[in-house]
Amino acid sequence: MIAELISVGTELLLGNTVNTNAAFLAEKCALLGLSIYYQTTVGDNEERLAETIQTAFKRSDVVILSGGLGPTKDDLTKEVTAKVMGMPLKEDKHTRERIEAYFKNSRSKTVTENNWKQALVPEGSKVVDNKNGTAPGLIMEKNGKVAILLPGPPNELIPMFNNDIFPYLNSIQPETIYSAMVKICGLGESLVETQIADLIEKQTNPTIAPYAKVGEVHLRVTAKAKDEKEAKKMVKPVVKELKERFGKNVYAAEENVTLEDTVIGLLKEKELTLTTVESCTGGLLAARLTKVPGVSEVFKQGLITYSNKAKRKLLDVKKSTLKEYGAISDKTAKEMAKNGAFITGADICVSITGIAGPDEVEEKPVGLVYIGCCYKNEVTVKEYHFNGERNKIREWAAVNALILLRECILEK
Amino acid sequence: MIAELISVGTELLLGNTVNTNAAFLAEKCALLGLSIYYQTTVGDNEERLAETIQTAFKRSDVVILSGGLGPTKDDLTKEVTAKVMGMPLKEDKHTRERIEAYFKNSRSKTVTENNWKQALVPEGSKVVDNKNGTAPGLIMEKNGKVAILLPGPPNELIPMFNNDIFPYLNSIQPETIYSAMVKICGLGESLVETQIADLIEKQTNPTIAPYAKVGEVHLRVTAKAKDEKEAKKMVKPVVKELKERFGKNVYAAEENVTLEDTVIGLLKEKELTLTTVESCTGGLLAARLTKVPGVSEVFKQGLITYSNKAKRKLLDVKKSTLKEYGAISDKTAKEMAKNGAFITGADICVSITGIAGPDEVEEKPVGLVYIGCCYKNEVTVKEYHFNGERNKIREWAAVNALILLRECILEK
Repeated sequence: MIAELISVGTELLLGNTVNTNAAFLAEKCALLGLSIYYQTTVGDNEERLAETIQTAFKRSDVVILSGGLGPTKDDLTKEVTAKVMGMPLKEDKHTRERIEAYFKNSRSKTVTENNWKQALVPEGSKVVDNKNGTAPGLIMEKNGKVAILLPGPPNELIPMFNNDIFPYLNSIQPETIYSAMVKICGLGESLVETQIADLIEKQTNPTIAPYAKVGEVHLRVTAKAKDEKEAKKMVKPVVKELKERFGKNVYAAEENVTLEDTVIGLLKEKELTLTTVESCTGGLLAARLTKVPGVSEVFKQGLITYSNKAKRKLLDVKKSTLKEYGAISDKTAKEMAKNGAFITGADICVSITGIAGPDEVEEKPVGLVYIGCCYKNEVTVKEYHFNGERNKIREWAAVNALILLRECILEK
Repeated sequence: MIAELISVGTELLLGNTVNTNAAFLAEKCALLGLSIYYQTTVGDNEERLAETIQTAFKRSDVVILSGGLGPTKDDLTKEVTAKVMGMPLKEDKHTRERIEAYFKNSRSKTVTENNWKQALVPEGSKVVDNKNGTAPGLIMEKNGKVAILLPGPPNELIPMFNNDIFPYLNSIQPETIYSAMVKICGLGESLVETQIADLIEKQTNPTIAPYAKVGEVHLRVTAKAKDEKEAKKMVKPVVKELKERFGKNVYAAEENVTLEDTVIGLLKEKELTLTTVESCTGGLLAARLTKVPGVSEVFKQGLITYSNKAKRKLLDVKKSTLKEYGAISDKTAKEMAKNGAFITGADICVSITGIAGPDEVEEKPVGLVYIGCCYKNEVTVKEYHFNGERNKIREWAAVNALILLRECILEK
């Protein structure tokens, strides 16, 4: 089946908003085995929107529209799609009640008159409840074609798609799709691709698709089969093979688990506490770790020792070390990690010191970073050379600190 | 004039990449006074790409294509556009030499044969040098229509557009465009819009366009005139008016200055040093400050006191304060800021303590945050209630800490 995306909104045409919805929907469609050949962005204009929908139906089976479902006169997506498909609007009692209830629970308790516009739905369409807003999603089927209408705000669109639209699209396909994600850290994209070149070469079903991230590569394994059970069975040995090939570099085999989730999970499992001591990353590593809910169980404190004086005062790094080897050195990274663990009484301490640029420091090149990890009184220090501008270098340093941390916990 | 964007690339159709180029180009076109009615994304497929370009030329004067200029056989944008416009390709000596020089300076010194494909340009086109890659940009004019071809990687596209394409587009317009940005912090979007409703109501030239960010609103003032001097003259009084209306809430009137740049600038100007002490934001504030190159002059250290014990041990917050008022309280924020300044010897210390969620703490609601700022021995503490999920709350807390910090430096 062929799908097509239409994003509706003047804010996209003016560049006020980056279209993250399109990437989200496209990735999900790819996963569902739907081919996408076109994505179009168009404004809240009746004539142009109608023409865009008509063109899309000529070349695609499923048209997914996002945005333009709001309560104002400008919002036209539902009205125009209903007109193009010949499905007149009428009020949906259930939706009206849901909107009433939504406002009762919100801060602004009064429903304005134009909100009732959102309770109008095309006759014969399936209404999809919106748990995070007022506009319902809509599935409109006619003459073998399907239009799916989704609200624009990502916090409404994403859960609605995952909970209701994904299963619907899976159900109308002749085959069922099932996919699993194998997440790899510590190996570059090209290395990962080389190591699975033979698998990719001969693949038909299941398929493996690599997605490169900063410091990570995610491999999506997707199978098509007559039912989910069959598809799952086909995915399983491929995931197993990938796990074997990449061994300890596989940090998760679940869609929603991040590298920081895995590291925090390991710390919890082993009942270890962690301290971070950062120089060039300036808190980026700690900020990433503290994204994880419940991190307080294992992460008690972090120190950002940006200046040499702070490294000495807060971490007792020796004056002679800084003088002889410099702040950006394996010796400094080692003392930072060791003393950080000792001073805070944490089981593990990870340290980062490096040059994010734009200028050289201590006559050392931009991108040079040392990361240390002290665990069970032993300190591992690694030297890295990262490319790119200041914030890219900082990001790479933070992700590599997570990777080293994970390695140290696993190995010892 | 009407412009249209065509983004070319399978990675966009598969959702591997978020199309940030489209938002960048759309914002620049809006600024140039070019109307955009359609943005299309299409894959590296000859037939579909040709059809998309033909459709675009029927309804627009300027078609901006990005992506698909690479050296591989898959990259078709130049070939297809040249065919559609009837401008055959021939080798450009200058570009060949530039590519040679580019490889000489790069790590992989060898030019592979397919790289010479990038030296082919449509006859009669203007070649735009790429300072960050091999593929040149191209301006193709024929029969009153213009195609602009840009490389896909943002680090190549953005500088090329700003340096060469923006002035070109400005030059082919009957009028010159000039714009300025007024950046406001500490006021909500609706409040800002209300305060300039009268200006927006009557505006024709210059115009004011608001862009809402987390904790900030940016107002772009744009004038059209016969030349830049005239346009600048028209923008000036509007910027002055906006500065008067929003007073101290205006933190910058320059495009590229961020809130953290302004805060660091103020600290440097007043020769003040800063310490950050963070709980729920877990380093996010420090990470934002240390984005700024040269921050080391004023930022020496930061403490992340996530646990109560860390608040006591590293910041000497009183046990009685934590027991009586809780970690999430104005009293704790106050002691954190005051003691943070004292212990580290910094001139200013900003503290953050709050509940990012998902769970309540101390029977206080998710989103409750206290931010303290100690300057000249006086501590200001403010209470905030933020909405949204964990990371949204942390972002709002960090930006509000920057805003409070700026206020304290300016007021005292």
